[in-house]
Amino acid sequence: MSAERQAPARRAAFNQFEPIETRWADNDVYGHVNNVVYYGFFDTAVNRRLARAGLLDIEHGETIGLVVETGCRYHAATAFPDQLEAGVRVARIGSSSVRYEIAIFKHGEDTAAAEGFFVHVYVDRQTRRPKPLPEQWRAELEAGWSRQATAWGPAVGPRLRPSPETSRPRQDSPA
Amino acid sequence: MSAERQAPARRAAFNQFEPIETRWADNDVYGHVNNVVYYGFFDTAVNRRLARAGLLDIEHGETIGLVVETGCRYHAATAFPDQLEAGVRVARIGSSSVRYEIAIFKHGEDTAAAEGFFVHVYVDRQTRRPKPLPEQWRAELEAGWSRQATAWGPAVGPRLRPSPETSRPRQDSPA
Amino acid sequence: MSAERQAPARRAAFNQFEPIETRWADNDVYGHVNNVVYYGFFDTAVNRRLARAGLLDIEHGETIGLVVETGCRYHAATAFPDQLEAGVRVARIGSSSVRYEIAIFKHGEDTAAAEGFFVHVYVDRQTRRPKPLPEQWRAELEAGWSRQATAWGPAVGPRLRPSPETSRPRQDSPA
Amino acid sequence: MSAERQAPARRAAFNQFEPIETRWADNDVYGHVNNVVYYGFFDTAVNRRLARAGLLDIEHGETIGLVVETGCRYHAATAFPDQLEAGVRVARIGSSSVRYEIAIFKHGEDTAAAEGFFVHVYVDRQTRRPKPLPEQWRAELEAGWSRQATAWGPAVGPRLRPSPETSRPRQDSPA
Repeated sequence: MSAERQAPARRAAFNQFEPIETRWADNDVYGHVNNVVYYGFFDTAVNRRLARAGLLDIEHGETIGLVVETGCRYHAATAFPDQLEAGVRVARIGSSSVRYEIAIFKHGEDTAAAEGFFVHVYVDRQTRRPKPLPEQWRAELEAGWSRQATAWGPAVGPRLRPSPETSRPRQDSPA
Repeated sequence: MSAERQAPARRAAFNQFEPIETRWADNDVYGHVNNVVYYGFFDTAVNRRLARAGLLDIEHGETIGLVVETGCRYHAATAFPDQLEAGVRVARIGSSSVRYEIAIFKHGEDTAAAEGFFVHVYVDRQTRRPKPLPEQWRAELEAGWSRQATAWGPAVGPRLRPSPETSRPRQDSPA
Repeated sequence: MSAERQAPARRAAFNQFEPIETRWADNDVYGHVNNVVYYGFFDTAVNRRLARAGLLDIEHGETIGLVVETGCRYHAATAFPDQLEAGVRVARIGSSSVRYEIAIFKHGEDTAAAEGFFVHVYVDRQTRRPKPLPEQWRAELEAGWSRQATAWGPAVGPRLRPSPETSRPRQDSPA
Repeated sequence: MSAERQAPARRAAFNQFEPIETRWADNDVYGHVNNVVYYGFFDTAVNRRLARAGLLDIEHGETIGLVVETGCRYHAATAFPDQLEAGVRVARIGSSSVRYEIAIFKHGEDTAAAEGFFVHVYVDRQTRRPKPLPEQWRAELEAGWSRQATAWGPAVGPRLRPSPETSRPRQDSPA
């Protein structure tokens, strides 16, 4: 917003896109997609990619991702029935965590309507304790997912890029 | 998560609380309240306070709040049918923007299960352009809402505390 | 709506009530709680009662309820931040199914803003095949939950009151 | 479920389909798309068709549709990240109301996973009182939307097919 506010992300910063169809209930009383809904787009875009790549087995997999931090900046409104695309990239791969970054584009637009991130810590489904990111997972992310300097940039600092692999999230960290 | 990861917020950092009843659908497939849902708690807790204080007239008010940035850190899981409370405070009041901070506590617990923020820019309902925060609104926030150093701390820096009053959000910034 | 349309349910038809706090996102673009949201109230009110009564163990119980049919009629609008109550009753207890009926009242009002039902078939969590309603469950429902002629009345006929206990829902009937 | 339970709808009963992409949060704790979510699919599929046909102007149109009754039967589970299609048809056109019927199919399947309906009463946006269905709207529905005997069939009777045009919904009927 101020001079410091970074410009919205552009399509070129992403090499993978997932279609997002808006829904009636995405619009809130002000007639636009509510700020909360974008986080649902993030979950959906990343987990759909992971599931279709055979990495995430939602129902039975031994490794599941718990979310420890999320954030989003909003640049322009979208509204049902817009068709959107989610650009997805990996910003950081730790020993048991990954920071995913997502930008939401209106169909045919080059600059993001919203952009954000979430940090997954990978844990054992039963114990809910961190475990190393499976090798196949790491290889797939390193090979096929674009990695760029985060849109939030270095100014945000280490606190927005936790190193969960050196810590012990509580057993019951939220999904 | 790392040494830098700050401790969860505690109740004493808030002087106002809103009850939050979890719902069946708040739980996702992993059996816990989904990360996205907390942002709905934030919207609900703050806007309910604003509406009940007579500041926000959702249907007819000339001034509405658009969200330009949000963030959340997750410390511990919650699950339906838990009863929760949302601690609410104001971290910064600009000329046309307010940064609200919210922490979600399980009933009877002293440390937050999750904590986050959102930044409202106040705009004219019709033009969707920023307008000065109404005086009554400012007075109410200054008098009755606790103000504390943000849980995210100075390290996050100015970029997470935009100064929207010096900028011009696009007319269609999301609600 | 026509002469045949039955009057809204009244409070006296229910002996148990659950508080429902509306949320910001319950309102849709027309400024009222969206029709879909009421079904979330139904799920929440009934399952919360079942969980708190110790009948439903969402995470580990051997018996879970799958929904095979739902319906709702809408009489008057509600809107965030209204406080609502859900009246809950049992209309029919089969050998492995229960028809729950729910009416949503605005705080202090005697006639329902909306009323509906859902039919649970109780199944084994693993096999997802119907199993007899546990005796404790049946006893609790028979003792403590009011049972009344359904608001939909006999005209709706047997098709809205399936007898799931004589059938075999597909293994993967939705929750 | 019993002998009386009708078979699930088949694709041939619909001539228009809308794609539905499931989302992460559609799955509930039992790992399947929650019963409530289907109603969101219904709203989305029908209103998207109406908006794209130029009939429904969500933000500014003088005529808006309020929902007075809904229902759904569930035949088989679906789960994120399934791709679904919503078959949409019109079962009844009254002077100011329309009964839409929707069936949800998994990609490539011929029988519905779920099927339901909603009844729209068309009202003036400001007064919220019923008004005749605009001629263009009626013509479009009659020309292009398939009309079939409802899946619920005559046994459900007139109460599930209200004649809202002969009545006066309360001014504040829910959207």
